[in-house]
Amino acid sequence: MSAVAAVRRSPPTEALLDHLRQLLGDRLSIAMAVREQHGRDESYHVTAPPDAVAFARSTEEVSQIVKACAAAGVPVIPFGTGTSLEGHVAALHGGICLDVSQMKEVLRVSTADLDCTVQAGVTRKQLNEHLRDTGLFFPIDPGADASLGGMAATRASGTNAVRYGTMRENVLGLTVVLADGRVIRTGGRARKSAAGYDLTRLFVGSEGTLGVITEVTLRLYGVPEAMAAAVCSFPTLAGAVDTTILTIQSGIPIARIELLDEVQMDAINRYSKLDYPLQPTLFCEFHGTEAGVAEQSEMVKAIAAEQGAADFQWATKPEDRSRLWAARHTAYYAAISLRPGAKGWATDVCVPISRLAECILETKKDIIASRLLAPIVGHVGDGNFHLAFIIDPNDADEIARAQALNERMVHRALAMGGTCTGEHGIGYGKMEFLTAEHGEAVSVMRMLKRALDPDNIMNPGKIVSV
Amino acid sequence: MSAVAAVRRSPPTEALLDHLRQLLGDRLSIAMAVREQHGRDESYHVTAPPDAVAFARSTEEVSQIVKACAAAGVPVIPFGTGTSLEGHVAALHGGICLDVSQMKEVLRVSTADLDCTVQAGVTRKQLNEHLRDTGLFFPIDPGADASLGGMAATRASGTNAVRYGTMRENVLGLTVVLADGRVIRTGGRARKSAAGYDLTRLFVGSEGTLGVITEVTLRLYGVPEAMAAAVCSFPTLAGAVDTTILTIQSGIPIARIELLDEVQMDAINRYSKLDYPLQPTLFCEFHGTEAGVAEQSEMVKAIAAEQGAADFQWATKPEDRSRLWAARHTAYYAAISLRPGAKGWATDVCVPISRLAECILETKKDIIASRLLAPIVGHVGDGNFHLAFIIDPNDADEIARAQALNERMVHRALAMGGTCTGEHGIGYGKMEFLTAEHGEAVSVMRMLKRALDPDNIMNPGKIVSV
Repeated sequence: MSAVAAVRRSPPTEALLDHLRQLLGDRLSIAMAVREQHGRDESYHVTAPPDAVAFARSTEEVSQIVKACAAAGVPVIPFGTGTSLEGHVAALHGGICLDVSQMKEVLRVSTADLDCTVQAGVTRKQLNEHLRDTGLFFPIDPGADASLGGMAATRASGTNAVRYGTMRENVLGLTVVLADGRVIRTGGRARKSAAGYDLTRLFVGSEGTLGVITEVTLRLYGVPEAMAAAVCSFPTLAGAVDTTILTIQSGIPIARIELLDEVQMDAINRYSKLDYPLQPTLFCEFHGTEAGVAEQSEMVKAIAAEQGAADFQWATKPEDRSRLWAARHTAYYAAISLRPGAKGWATDVCVPISRLAECILETKKDIIASRLLAPIVGHVGDGNFHLAFIIDPNDADEIARAQALNERMVHRALAMGGTCTGEHGIGYGKMEFLTAEHGEAVSVMRMLKRALDPDNIMNPGKIVSV
Repeated sequence: MSAVAAVRRSPPTEALLDHLRQLLGDRLSIAMAVREQHGRDESYHVTAPPDAVAFARSTEEVSQIVKACAAAGVPVIPFGTGTSLEGHVAALHGGICLDVSQMKEVLRVSTADLDCTVQAGVTRKQLNEHLRDTGLFFPIDPGADASLGGMAATRASGTNAVRYGTMRENVLGLTVVLADGRVIRTGGRARKSAAGYDLTRLFVGSEGTLGVITEVTLRLYGVPEAMAAAVCSFPTLAGAVDTTILTIQSGIPIARIELLDEVQMDAINRYSKLDYPLQPTLFCEFHGTEAGVAEQSEMVKAIAAEQGAADFQWATKPEDRSRLWAARHTAYYAAISLRPGAKGWATDVCVPISRLAECILETKKDIIASRLLAPIVGHVGDGNFHLAFIIDPNDADEIARAQALNERMVHRALAMGGTCTGEHGIGYGKMEFLTAEHGEAVSVMRMLKRALDPDNIMNPGKIVSV
């Protein structure tokens, strides 16, 4: 299902595998089931299994594995939870998958500084569980229970980004193993610094192509005094999107504002046994003081009412809020289950907020014309939305129609000053769009890749070809 | 006054100067007064005049100037308003100063998207003047009326950063002329993107060493419904700092919280003809809805009272707020005027907020022991504070004592997990501290510099030596 030709290099020698076995014991696996599982993410992209999977437990082990692979010229593909969506972990050129999921230690939490340092394999849910009694939380929430190393590597964001930012804004520093096995720290714990090039931001979003992230220092936030969530249905898609646009333009510090179209609401109702109206819907959440939350929600209610919305259905109890966001987070799986045997293909774009209504409505027209099943969901407060094509992976015509629609949507977003991906990343699925978006700047990305990974062993074939 | 030896390269040939004259006419200057003015910033660092100053008016002109200099192997030093503080604009190796101050066009403002694009020479005050009737403002405020290109290049921040972030968070994209004269755009106008390496953040803070920033796309903010500022004196420095720490730890979204010690307050009183108590003082500002501002300020008042503060002196009228912040912004000049004939040497560090009291109090002890005049001011909400040594530039002993004190302060901040500069940058004044802070990571910075500027013509001798 992809046009990328996997040009395999020579596979790892027995000498390299023996060396890694000495280092890792049975934490080096060449079992086909393990390799297959590590060669695919949650997308439609074809599986490309690595030659072996190395399960590291420390920065030092990662360094040794990378050094051995570098000496042998064998690719290294970092792997967290495998929840990426653009083929990020596919071993297109073979090589060693470096699985960090056993690096699960929360190394340090400072309640006084609202920050923490974790190993790369700690997931966001594990971190929030760890923080439960501290009064702090980590807000970035891409839906999947991804590893924080993987979230940093893909510049993840999700439902809370409209208020709290993305991984770009919330990573204070990283420990990174470079392509030659050297270990660096990219930043300290100060909230800001003007000391040299911003290596932290260079590695955030580099998708494992410049080095392996082994530790992450993160900003944390106090759990708000008050939180309230609400669901609100609209007679039209335009009404829901315009409510979002006006909310953002008014500067209301809403914590979450999520759009689900009527197809997605149908999927959620069936999957999570709910009975929301089959209409375009916003899921909202407000964080702040009691007074602040009341003020914000009144403002948004007034905007929504002007756009023809039904009343807010409130979820103020923690368990009701959890149920609501669980429904939102299973949207992708709910969509896939609409059509037994089908596979999901998720894609996303992000545009300036003033163009969001136009971008979504034109895309919706395209979906209807295409006769494809493709629910729309979106972190619309950021101008970011997703399509999930629910397709038969063996139907070439369906796939061609989905590709054509995706291409039209991306080029529409770019023409509006937007980006070809708000949060899923490039992997190998969107490399052609990266060039369409950045033009000559892609050559600078290539210069950076060549400088930091001259032998092209770090997750080769992703983001830029060299 | 600096240990850096200026290894001059061969000066520009007459052929190069003729070429630039053909391009720019009388916008190429070799007058000594112009060169001198462009070879120094607002710091104590020695002046190193460039061989000529080229005043560009467009990205295209910048590209042609850089191409000509690249062909001749002549350094290019970008220059905005010359308000940097670590020798950033000194032409250590000679070369052409590329002055962008005539690039003063606001190219685009979108009130619907809360963003704008400006040429690099537009200053922050000019932009805010331009925005006056739109209901929007640009909050980043380093004090000086710096150019926005220069602010991006140095990752500037200032008084509002505690709420609105620094240039790192507020630049959406840049137009950059590379070291070979090619022009790239580093980002579009989407609020977030996962499309490739974060070139925007790579150039933000690169101090002209990787390319010349010619256009800047910035986030804007709605002017808050309500704003209130207050001045509050404390019997002890510890009380003022602890009030700051508790405010930040409580998650109160204060817009500005500035510390001035009693020496600085004395300077401000004399310079701005005010009569604040001669005590450690916080200048605070609150932004939000009427109710939000009232709530925030009550919370901070309560915290301050527990730390022994006197009552808040409110400045709610716009002219009173302007007067208060004008006094804050002239703090550096006020400090210099405490001692006729003296020069100022400003330095800054930034630490995790939990260590701020310790870091400031130990530094204050050092100042007293040193017998130097060195007021403390700080954007303390970020954990960032400044010393301004008010010294006799001809007194070697004073200078040595200031250097020793600065070095102790920086190493103290680093030991606390902080940074050697929160916002002033590295220039050539803090290169040794960059290595102390980042260790092996500096070699990665050097790899990036070599990759993007292999002939080392972009502002050579700053940030990293190659």
